[in-house]
Amino acid sequence: MDYNKAALAMHEKAPGKVGIESLVEVKSREELSTAYTPGVAEPCRKISANPDEVYKYTCKGRMVAVVSNGTAVLGLGDIGPAAGLPVMEGKAVLFKEFGGVDAFPICLDAKTPEEVIAACKAIAPTFGGINLEDIKSPECFAIEQTLERELDIPVFHDDQHGTAIVVTAALINALRVVGKTMESAHIVLNGPGAAGTAIIKMLMTAGAKDIIAVDQFGTLYKGCHSAEAHKNWLGEHTNPRQVKGGLAEAVAGADVFIGVSKPGCLTGAMCRTMAKDAIVFAMANPTPEIMPDEAKANGVRVIATGRSDFANQVNNVLCFPGLFKGALSVRARDINDKMKLAAAYAIADLVTDADRNDEYIIPGAFDPRVAETVAAAVAKAARESGVARA
Amino acid sequence: MDYNKAALAMHEKAPGKVGIESLVEVKSREELSTAYTPGVAEPCRKISANPDEVYKYTCKGRMVAVVSNGTAVLGLGDIGPAAGLPVMEGKAVLFKEFGGVDAFPICLDAKTPEEVIAACKAIAPTFGGINLEDIKSPECFAIEQTLERELDIPVFHDDQHGTAIVVTAALINALRVVGKTMESAHIVLNGPGAAGTAIIKMLMTAGAKDIIAVDQFGTLYKGCHSAEAHKNWLGEHTNPRQVKGGLAEAVAGADVFIGVSKPGCLTGAMCRTMAKDAIVFAMANPTPEIMPDEAKANGVRVIATGRSDFANQVNNVLCFPGLFKGALSVRARDINDKMKLAAAYAIADLVTDADRNDEYIIPGAFDPRVAETVAAAVAKAARESGVARA
Repeated sequence: MDYNKAALAMHEKAPGKVGIESLVEVKSREELSTAYTPGVAEPCRKISANPDEVYKYTCKGRMVAVVSNGTAVLGLGDIGPAAGLPVMEGKAVLFKEFGGVDAFPICLDAKTPEEVIAACKAIAPTFGGINLEDIKSPECFAIEQTLERELDIPVFHDDQHGTAIVVTAALINALRVVGKTMESAHIVLNGPGAAGTAIIKMLMTAGAKDIIAVDQFGTLYKGCHSAEAHKNWLGEHTNPRQVKGGLAEAVAGADVFIGVSKPGCLTGAMCRTMAKDAIVFAMANPTPEIMPDEAKANGVRVIATGRSDFANQVNNVLCFPGLFKGALSVRARDINDKMKLAAAYAIADLVTDADRNDEYIIPGAFDPRVAETVAAAVAKAARESGVARA
Repeated sequence: MDYNKAALAMHEKAPGKVGIESLVEVKSREELSTAYTPGVAEPCRKISANPDEVYKYTCKGRMVAVVSNGTAVLGLGDIGPAAGLPVMEGKAVLFKEFGGVDAFPICLDAKTPEEVIAACKAIAPTFGGINLEDIKSPECFAIEQTLERELDIPVFHDDQHGTAIVVTAALINALRVVGKTMESAHIVLNGPGAAGTAIIKMLMTAGAKDIIAVDQFGTLYKGCHSAEAHKNWLGEHTNPRQVKGGLAEAVAGADVFIGVSKPGCLTGAMCRTMAKDAIVFAMANPTPEIMPDEAKANGVRVIATGRSDFANQVNNVLCFPGLFKGALSVRARDINDKMKLAAAYAIADLVTDADRNDEYIIPGAFDPRVAETVAAAVAKAARESGVARA
C-alpha cells in the first residue's frame, strides 16, 4: 500500500483530521440562553467561588493538549510547528479513537524551552493534562520537568515516557518467555536520547540492575565526560560493570538489546555474541537496527520492532490513551512512576501465561481491552500514591 | 424559566459543552498507518516544503481560537481564566451550531497585554483565526492591534467589533424605518468602553458625522482630558458641535441613543427631549438603560435591546459565525473595515423593505439565512479589498 498517497488524500478531505463537536443543542431561545448568556453566568460564578468546580462545569477535566513546537517531528527533524500539525492532529485522533479521550493539537511557534514553558502555562486553564510530543532533546527534559513542577495538571512527554512504558511492558513479557528476571538481566540500550534515557530510568524503576547505555561514541560510564548532561548522569548511575568500548563490547554476553537508534547498527555477528535466549528490541523506524529474520538467524529468540508488519510491535498507542484516561478520571495532578509502572504491568498482563510466546509478548494495537485496562490500573495507582484529587 | 438551574444541569452533563471529533476512522492497520506513522510524514513533508499547504492538509484553515484571559467576563468582571471557560466553550458551541465553524476555547492564565500577546502568537500555528473575547479595556485595544499587525491570520475582538457590526446593521434599518440618514443623524453613545468605542468608529465608517460619546463624567470633547487615551481620541474626532455636559445635555434633540452602559440611566424625561421618531438601543444586560415600554411611552419610536424577550435583539451571534466562516473561506489575513461593513449590510438587508418596521429592524438569532449570507458578503469584501489569499 502506498501510504504517502493515501495519507495525502486522507488529509486533504476535511482538510485535517479533527473537528470540534458541540455537545449541546442550541435550537431554541431557551437553549441559547442556557448554553450562553444569561444562563452561562451561573457556572462561571460557581467556578469563581470554588475553582475546583471547573472540573464539574467545563471540558477541562476531559481535555488533553497535544503540544509540540515541531523541533523533532517523527524522523523528519526540526520542521517547525505548522509542518508538525498533521502529527499532532493524528495523535488527537488516536486519543479519541483508542481511548475516547478529547485531545486538541497545539503547535507552538516557540523555539526556546522558556517560550514553550510560558505558552503551556498560559493555556493550561483549558486543559486537564498536557501531552508533550516531538520536542527535541535535550530541551524536552527541562520543559517537562519545569511544567510538571509548576502546573497542577499532569504533563507527560510521550516520546520519553510513553515509549518507556510500552518497552517495559514488552520486556516484562519477553523476560517471562525466556525465564529470566529484570533484576538479573544484562541490558544494553543503544541511543540514549529522550526515549532511550526514559526507557533506562523506567527499567531501573522496574528492577533492572545492569544496563549499559551506548551512544555514537561508545558506552557511557563514570567520568565519560559527555557533552550532554543527561549522558553523564547515565554514566554515573548505570553500567555497574563499567564496560568500555563500542556497541560490540556492550552487547557481548548481554541478555537484552534495546535500540532506539539507527537502521542496521546491530549486526548478526553481534547477536551471536549475546547470551542464550537473547531478546532484541530493534525500534528504529521505519528500518530497524536489525531485521527480525536476520536476528533470528543469528540466535536471537525474541524480537520486537516498532513496525506493524512484524510480530511484537512496540506502539505507543497501547499506552497514552488509557494512561490519560485513567489520570483524568481521578483528576491526577501528576503522572508519577507508580502510575507509569502500573500502566506497563497492565499492558503486559493482558497477554496471558497461556498465550505468551516468542511472537506474542505484547497486545496488538487494536486489542479492544487495552485502554480501559490501562486506565483502571493508572487510576488505582494514582489513588494509592496520593496524586488523585477525585 | 430558571436559566441558572438549567445552565448548571446542562454544564454538568458531559461536563462542559465541546468535545473533539475525529474526522477519520482508525479501525485497521492501514488506517492507522495513514492517519499516523508512517503515512502522516508525507503531509508533514509537503507543508515543510511549502508552508501554505498547512491549509490543504490540516485543520488550521477551519479552526478558530476563542481566546480570553477572563478579565471581563460577561457582567461578572475579572473572574479569571478558569471561571471564564464556560463562556468560551459557549462561544465555540455557537460558532459550530450557527456557522458550522470549528472553534476551540483557550482560556489564558495571562494578565498583562504582553503575556496575552505572547500566548496568542505562540499558539497561532494551529489556528486560521483568533476570536478575542471578554478581555478588559483598555488592555484589549493594544492586544488586538498588536496581534492584527504581527500575525498573518485574522484577529477579531468580538466584544468590540462583533457588537459594532450588529449595532450598525440594526441602526441602518432603524434609520430606514424612520426615514433618516446615517450622515445627518445626531447620535449619542453612552458608555465608550471597548464596545462603545468600536461602535462609534464603525458608525463613522458607515457615514455617521455627528456622534457624541458620553462617559460617567459627561460628554467627550476636544481637550476633555480623560485619563483614558481612547477617550481623548474620541473627544478629538467626534462631537462636532462640541456639546458639553451630561447625558441629558447630549440626548436633547438627538435622533439616536445607543447605550452600552448601565441599567436605568436613560430616563423617560430624557427620551421626551429627543428628536421626533427617536431611536433607542438600550443594550445594558440583563437590565437595559430604559425598558422598552417606558421608552415607547415617552415618544421613542424604535427600540432595540440585548434581550431575546423583546423585539429587535442586538445579538452578536448574528455576526461572528458567518464573519469567520467568510474570512476562513478565502483565507483572509485580516478582517478589515470593508469586511465588517459588508457584514453589517448583509445582516441589515436580510430584513426586506416590505417586512421592515419599528419592531423588526434586525433578523432573529435563529434566522437560518444569516451565517451563509454574512459569510458570502465577507468573502466578497475580502477579495475586493485584497486580503483574501484563496
